[in-house]
Amino acid sequence: MISYSKIQEAYDRISKEINHTPVMTSRTLNSLLDAQIYLKCENFQRIGAFKFRGAYNAISQLSDEQKSRGVITHSSGNHAQAVALTAKILGINATIVMPKGSPQVKINATRDTYGAKVVLCENTVKSRHETCDNIMTKEGQTLIHPYDNDHIIAGAGTAAFELLQEVPNLDMIIAPVGGGGLLSGSSIAAKGINSHIRVIAAEPEGADDAYRSLLSGKIESNQNPNTIADGLRTNLCNRTFSIIRTNVEKIITVSESEIIHAMQLIWERMKIIIEPSSATPLAALLSKKISVKNLKVGLIISGGNIDLTDFFSLLKKQIV
Amino acid sequence: MISYSKIQEAYDRISKEINHTPVMTSRTLNSLLDAQIYLKCENFQRIGAFKFRGAYNAISQLSDEQKSRGVITHSSGNHAQAVALTAKILGINATIVMPKGSPQVKINATRDTYGAKVVLCENTVKSRHETCDNIMTKEGQTLIHPYDNDHIIAGAGTAAFELLQEVPNLDMIIAPVGGGGLLSGSSIAAKGINSHIRVIAAEPEGADDAYRSLLSGKIESNQNPNTIADGLRTNLCNRTFSIIRTNVEKIITVSESEIIHAMQLIWERMKIIIEPSSATPLAALLSKKISVKNLKVGLIISGGNIDLTDFFSLLKKQIV
Repeated sequence: MISYSKIQEAYDRISKEINHTPVMTSRTLNSLLDAQIYLKCENFQRIGAFKFRGAYNAISQLSDEQKSRGVITHSSGNHAQAVALTAKILGINATIVMPKGSPQVKINATRDTYGAKVVLCENTVKSRHETCDNIMTKEGQTLIHPYDNDHIIAGAGTAAFELLQEVPNLDMIIAPVGGGGLLSGSSIAAKGINSHIRVIAAEPEGADDAYRSLLSGKIESNQNPNTIADGLRTNLCNRTFSIIRTNVEKIITVSESEIIHAMQLIWERMKIIIEPSSATPLAALLSKKISVKNLKVGLIISGGNIDLTDFFSLLKKQIV
Repeated sequence: MISYSKIQEAYDRISKEINHTPVMTSRTLNSLLDAQIYLKCENFQRIGAFKFRGAYNAISQLSDEQKSRGVITHSSGNHAQAVALTAKILGINATIVMPKGSPQVKINATRDTYGAKVVLCENTVKSRHETCDNIMTKEGQTLIHPYDNDHIIAGAGTAAFELLQEVPNLDMIIAPVGGGGLLSGSSIAAKGINSHIRVIAAEPEGADDAYRSLLSGKIESNQNPNTIADGLRTNLCNRTFSIIRTNVEKIITVSESEIIHAMQLIWERMKIIIEPSSATPLAALLSKKISVKNLKVGLIISGGNIDLTDFFSLLKKQIV
């Protein structure tokens, strides 16, 4: 397992490039849960999600020779934009493999805003890996895996690290779990600062591989993940599973309607835009599957990237 | 005109009850406008809008005898909730006159969340005033006008006051203008701190009474205000007009599609929820009707109350 010192080092390395995101509170949430709730708002991070922390931590440590050959990853989500922006900042080439059918807005953002090269593949795990491997073999890029990478995990952990610098006496931290990078990093940060801080995860019922993995003691996978929380459809890897087994007390699964309800509550009462994945920790608390009465609880709000096109199309129609 | 010292006094009076809202920035906006843009985020204020500042400043100064008779106002918007919450905090009765047909969600919030008495009237200015007058005559409440009131204006000005404490060297402040309370208060705060700070207003074309009033030199009114910016449909009063004539350099009108475009930009890039009225200052800048190149510009983001029901209904349908 990577050590706490790796998170501190990552923090020093990325500190000048990241947004030091705010910790927000809400009288409504505190009163609803009879607890003190602190939201670490990575929706305000660059590219709109915590992923920039890990990408910058990983890519900035490559050798000059590696940098000259560029980086590659497969993702249609926040990790793609994080790698693309980091590469742009560092002046190196990035290739992003995305499945055909990815939203055009995401392809455009990755290619036009951040200047990465986008290669489309079939929408299967096999095709993604094969496409990546073929390009790497020919062109020699370094793969930046979205979570099966110690530097990515250490970078992701700097969000909880910052949260605990600002609110040191938390009793509990809750993070969403998909591939497990954010949860692993958050748990190492929390336990490194104070081993008594309880670390809890929130996961959609429709992609509950981590929940089942903790029960069975081996990595389970999602065959057909079905959740609006698009950042949480991935499976754990050995690297993240071993950290999670050690550090995480409990994984709470939440339904789709619980996720949407929690998301709406945060939008309406806190006036911030969070993506469905980020609503799972609050959904877990509202499900009452864990008691937080009188506790100080930190929620990692992982990002705020959600397609608003339909909403604004409706508004525009009202004025025509 | 009320003096700058009234704003300082208001700030001291309300400081413990208000949210000291953050000032947010965006690389995207700065780069788009070639300027440094600072958003004073009153969407994070209590009740979701700056109106709480004025309401608390006004109502907390009433005599014990006035407080015992309660307060009254006519509003279906943010001012209603601001008066209702203030009354709840101070333990006094509030009566809110709202037009029939007001959104049920607003009636419920005012009545159930804040415990005010809601009285419905016909949806005309005449009926609002008559209903208010009749109740006051019988029951003796004090009217808390949404903007024709020095304490309300001084309270509203504390948002710009706070912004300038945090970013003292602004070249310009832009605020939306409806009845003119926020704009008046902001202008007094800005000119009181530094008379060289330029004060600009943004107003919807569909409710451009303030723009026409500055041109003609007398108060003009909106006969049939038609704008999505529901907080800006009201007309100036003598009190606000005289302040605005003295302090405000220019009023920039913006179209409905410019308002929605600016709002979408802020939602998507800054991940914060702002209401249409709050998007008018950015819309004014994007219209290029004023140059801000290389300037430091503060935008007063007045609130974040917008009905999200349709958006979340769409999301819920996706999971059924």
